[in-house]
Amino acid sequence: MQDGRKRAVIENVQPMVDGGRFPAKRAVGEKAKVSADVFVDGHDRLSVRLHYRHNYGPWRTVPMQAKVNDRFEGAFVVEEVGSCQFAVEAMADQFRTWLEGLVKKRRAGKDTAAELADGASLVARTAARAEGAEAGALDHFAARLGGEDAADALDAALDDQLSQLMDRWQSRELATLQDPPAVIQADPDLALFSAWYEIFPRSVPGLSGEDRHGTFKDLEVILPEIKAMGFDVVYLPPIHPIGTTHRKGRNNVPECEPGDVGSPWAIGSLEGGHKDVHPELGSMEDFERLTARARELGLEIALDIAFQCSPDHPWVSEHPEWFRHRVDGSIRYAENPPKEYQDIYPLDFETEDWRALWKALRDVFLHWIRLGVRVFRVDNPHTKPFGFWEWCLGEIKRDHPGTIFLSEAFTRPKPMHRLAKAGFNQSYTYFTWRNTKWEIESYMTQLVEEAPRDFYRPNFWPNTPDILPEFLQYSGRPGFLIRLVLAATLSASYGVYGPAFELCEDEAPPGREEYKDSEKFQLKIRDWSKPGNIREHMTLVNEIRRANPALQTTWNLRFVPTDNDFVIAYLKHSDDEENLVLTVVCLDPYNPQAAWVQLPDDVLEPGRPFMVHDLLGDERYIWQGLSNYLRLDPEVLPARIFQVHRRLKRETDFDYFL
Amino acid sequence: MQDGRKRAVIENVQPMVDGGRFPAKRAVGEKAKVSADVFVDGHDRLSVRLHYRHNYGPWRTVPMQAKVNDRFEGAFVVEEVGSCQFAVEAMADQFRTWLEGLVKKRRAGKDTAAELADGASLVARTAARAEGAEAGALDHFAARLGGEDAADALDAALDDQLSQLMDRWQSRELATLQDPPAVIQADPDLALFSAWYEIFPRSVPGLSGEDRHGTFKDLEVILPEIKAMGFDVVYLPPIHPIGTTHRKGRNNVPECEPGDVGSPWAIGSLEGGHKDVHPELGSMEDFERLTARARELGLEIALDIAFQCSPDHPWVSEHPEWFRHRVDGSIRYAENPPKEYQDIYPLDFETEDWRALWKALRDVFLHWIRLGVRVFRVDNPHTKPFGFWEWCLGEIKRDHPGTIFLSEAFTRPKPMHRLAKAGFNQSYTYFTWRNTKWEIESYMTQLVEEAPRDFYRPNFWPNTPDILPEFLQYSGRPGFLIRLVLAATLSASYGVYGPAFELCEDEAPPGREEYKDSEKFQLKIRDWSKPGNIREHMTLVNEIRRANPALQTTWNLRFVPTDNDFVIAYLKHSDDEENLVLTVVCLDPYNPQAAWVQLPDDVLEPGRPFMVHDLLGDERYIWQGLSNYLRLDPEVLPARIFQVHRRLKRETDFDYFL
Repeated sequence: MQDGRKRAVIENVQPMVDGGRFPAKRAVGEKAKVSADVFVDGHDRLSVRLHYRHNYGPWRTVPMQAKVNDRFEGAFVVEEVGSCQFAVEAMADQFRTWLEGLVKKRRAGKDTAAELADGASLVARTAARAEGAEAGALDHFAARLGGEDAADALDAALDDQLSQLMDRWQSRELATLQDPPAVIQADPDLALFSAWYEIFPRSVPGLSGEDRHGTFKDLEVILPEIKAMGFDVVYLPPIHPIGTTHRKGRNNVPECEPGDVGSPWAIGSLEGGHKDVHPELGSMEDFERLTARARELGLEIALDIAFQCSPDHPWVSEHPEWFRHRVDGSIRYAENPPKEYQDIYPLDFETEDWRALWKALRDVFLHWIRLGVRVFRVDNPHTKPFGFWEWCLGEIKRDHPGTIFLSEAFTRPKPMHRLAKAGFNQSYTYFTWRNTKWEIESYMTQLVEEAPRDFYRPNFWPNTPDILPEFLQYSGRPGFLIRLVLAATLSASYGVYGPAFELCEDEAPPGREEYKDSEKFQLKIRDWSKPGNIREHMTLVNEIRRANPALQTTWNLRFVPTDNDFVIAYLKHSDDEENLVLTVVCLDPYNPQAAWVQLPDDVLEPGRPFMVHDLLGDERYIWQGLSNYLRLDPEVLPARIFQVHRRLKRETDFDYFL
Repeated sequence: MQDGRKRAVIENVQPMVDGGRFPAKRAVGEKAKVSADVFVDGHDRLSVRLHYRHNYGPWRTVPMQAKVNDRFEGAFVVEEVGSCQFAVEAMADQFRTWLEGLVKKRRAGKDTAAELADGASLVARTAARAEGAEAGALDHFAARLGGEDAADALDAALDDQLSQLMDRWQSRELATLQDPPAVIQADPDLALFSAWYEIFPRSVPGLSGEDRHGTFKDLEVILPEIKAMGFDVVYLPPIHPIGTTHRKGRNNVPECEPGDVGSPWAIGSLEGGHKDVHPELGSMEDFERLTARARELGLEIALDIAFQCSPDHPWVSEHPEWFRHRVDGSIRYAENPPKEYQDIYPLDFETEDWRALWKALRDVFLHWIRLGVRVFRVDNPHTKPFGFWEWCLGEIKRDHPGTIFLSEAFTRPKPMHRLAKAGFNQSYTYFTWRNTKWEIESYMTQLVEEAPRDFYRPNFWPNTPDILPEFLQYSGRPGFLIRLVLAATLSASYGVYGPAFELCEDEAPPGREEYKDSEKFQLKIRDWSKPGNIREHMTLVNEIRRANPALQTTWNLRFVPTDNDFVIAYLKHSDDEENLVLTVVCLDPYNPQAAWVQLPDDVLEPGRPFMVHDLLGDERYIWQGLSNYLRLDPEVLPARIFQVHRRLKRETDFDYFL
């Protein structure tokens, strides 16, 4: 039975996911704000503190402050990748309760002799616990509190130094401590702030349209271009040997023609499986050189891991028990009736040999980690058991906590959330299909203000090789610019499937949200400098993201009202509030739209002019009030990203009006 | 490591309080609706079930149904007072997944021979697990599925009997089971639905104004009157010996006059403490007779337990260590500076002897339970440690699960909620100060729709001996009627401090929400039949509550719009939806108010006339549409409680229009 004298209650500690069943996520450099309901019976004052530590190192302690409705808050900055623990501690504060009572009595003109004597006793007992000079100081205070001179005793009681010493040395034997501590998954900053560029190496023999199968070596040459566009992660569809049995032809037809390259997701052939590279892309040494070159440039190579096998995968013969067999002895291929995927065998996670299967899949990741890969995109993780992912990612992160996993689950919200809880650092989202102001505002509010924010980090993709959304099919170049700016400024992490994106490729089979002549089934050699491309804008948007800390987190988003449903506007500010960015986007790709944008009065001083600098169009304006008129022409530029200068110096103000 | 093949995920099971840290509460006869997010990787169909049991008896199982967004729901009726457990179980349903695939393939015109063979194998394996005739039936289905006749095989697959047999016998070895189960505190129905009448026995020597100290014997005579008014619980302020040291005089003056009776909350004298009765009220035998007589009448006597002591309490000399001492050796009396309560010594819950103190306090309850008390109102529980209550109520309920505790904590929401979580069956609320439509609607929404609903059962008090709210001070008899109807129809449990309430006593000291000449410090002999009293209305309201199951729960409340902020309207319906009650209250005590009341179209058939019967005014109306005009004159009757008759038979319709 716990000591019944521990009277303080601690409830509803945040961030905790499902009551501590899963860790919350924060990135290195991010502030972890911790809050809890704390109270005690009766009218005692409380002393509430927050303990935290990184990777089981020494505990550190910061005070927590009372907010409204018994809520207390404290914060610390996450400093190390790995695991971070925190625990709230609270107790009735004898000294401050005493001091408050003394002051009230004194104010009411009551006799305080008995109070002062009690205080002297409390301080003297505390002095006995203190060390060094501070013990002496406390003894001295105790003597003054218990002394003959009532005025001096009161001065002593009110002395800030006494309060500080008592805070430090007062017995905390009867404090309540949150037990067990809460856990935070502390991720690399790249998990929070990242720009991804997806590219099929086989389609890029060069930038100028050479017509042959591209290789790792070719990609190595192109890396500086991708770096120059401002991306952090170069993500490749599966690079493993591609099966030949039932290989799909161009445009996903069931029978392929000679020379068809097949889908990289039909993994495995005589040349190997998930730990091998497709010979046409090059050798393992080529791949290692690619990752090394990327790292030199400050880029990460991300691999797409798709746990499924072509009929030619070595596992099919080595581990037939990992696949589901029919009564007739054949292996079940993937189906979503009436669709059939004869070129794909799903793994059977209900196999009796599931332990060996789990280990083999984990070892795929460990294999590529050894070869220098730190970032993985996982294909369709929601079709593999959630328990597997929790185990697998836990196993990998134990030794490689800096590894980043992006969950490509386009499914219902709860399975998507569960994968994030299981350890995925980033997740695909519904952004791809959120186009109108109402859709974007309500979706962002779910992501940023509701429970998932503690574990579900969005990565926004305007397009993927699987998805050419309807909006991009009919909105032309302005539509691509709109979706670029939205993705890159709403979410701290975003990605594009390039060069299809910046070349504004928008041809789809009728009635489908897919690419015509999809690169998934054929080579697609492009002219990277095709007129009308938006590479310059993409480069500039990435520059703006790097230069503005406000855009480096997703959690500080705040929509501001406009009087036009085609014009969306939102503010973001850095933790220190020094950097303030207002993004305004015209959601209509066809017609110019104008709107009054209303800034909140707690962010800007209403009576004072301030300068805004549109970093995208490089135009400056002086705004004199909180309500400002904007006109956006999608043919010119459908968006503005304003850096808001709030603290104009007087002389600068003057300059503007000269 | 759990079997990795258990693929179904169960999350966010409701009702669970703080993730299972505390039990949720339901009353006997109440339906416990259980819901959970359940999903599995991939596209498999799910089989989800709910297991439950009462007081560790045999488990029972009911199916759970899929709702939107991966939420599943099931329900059972609470049948026994005590502890009830439930657990959700889920698994990928091999049979139904197979059947769905078969049907889709068939519809798409594909060959299903391999599917049928797989199904035959699955059914045959299940037959081997089944017993008796059902094993034979399954074997027969297996043979048909595997037979030559493709049409017959398909008929067999689609046979409902096969599905039912498979539901019953299919292996559940790979099912995920919620572990540990969730716990529900199953309370007597009185915990949910109760009408309380608080009365000072010393003020009731009789009903006709005899001027002497009332006794238990006098109260015994009056019990049938209280029963006739329709109450369930007769609740008495503390009945223990009253201290004499520093006894407060009339109107709470610090010095009492000879003959002053003192406050019943200054507990303890030479004549005893918390286990004794005040001699002027009678003997312990008188008290036992009182509880026995109450029980005969179908009433419960509730005691007010206030854990504090007068300086004359036996514990002060027997256990001085249970009180806090000053440095000067004196015991600290209660203070809320600058207020001082020299007649009250609080207990010191930080005493080193806390274990003995806790046991002594628990034994106070056990003592009165042995004497026939089943209901307790606890005074200021929020000034005693929350951990103490959790332990104490747990100890008592282990052997006496039918005991009901009402928490009289008028403090901030979170401490009030914590007391409820700790085991209090009912709680005082802020209803006492919620008067306007907006206040009432938003407060009720918090109580009924937010998290507290699973553990915090409101008991609505329009007045208490401590509180004569401002509204009742200036609203006259109509105001008392308004508050009566609101309390008794919004909440399934309510109570009044009588006879002050039904006599519409409204005199307060200037600027205070207290009673003038408060009964807390003096006898107050009344004429119970004083003109202008609202006893008949109170009796009628209690009758209406008993006759309408819709009013016997708090959780079915639904506000309906009116076009006048002085007119509030709300619907309640019984679980079976047979009983539907519409209450409409004029919140203005001075002026008649009229409003259009808009009923929801999912409750009533828009095109069909229906009869409403105002049970309070005994008037009937035919309403022909969902929007109806009402005029309420507070001087006549400020409220209507309509029983809504939705299912008029055709001939009855006709009768009305004759």
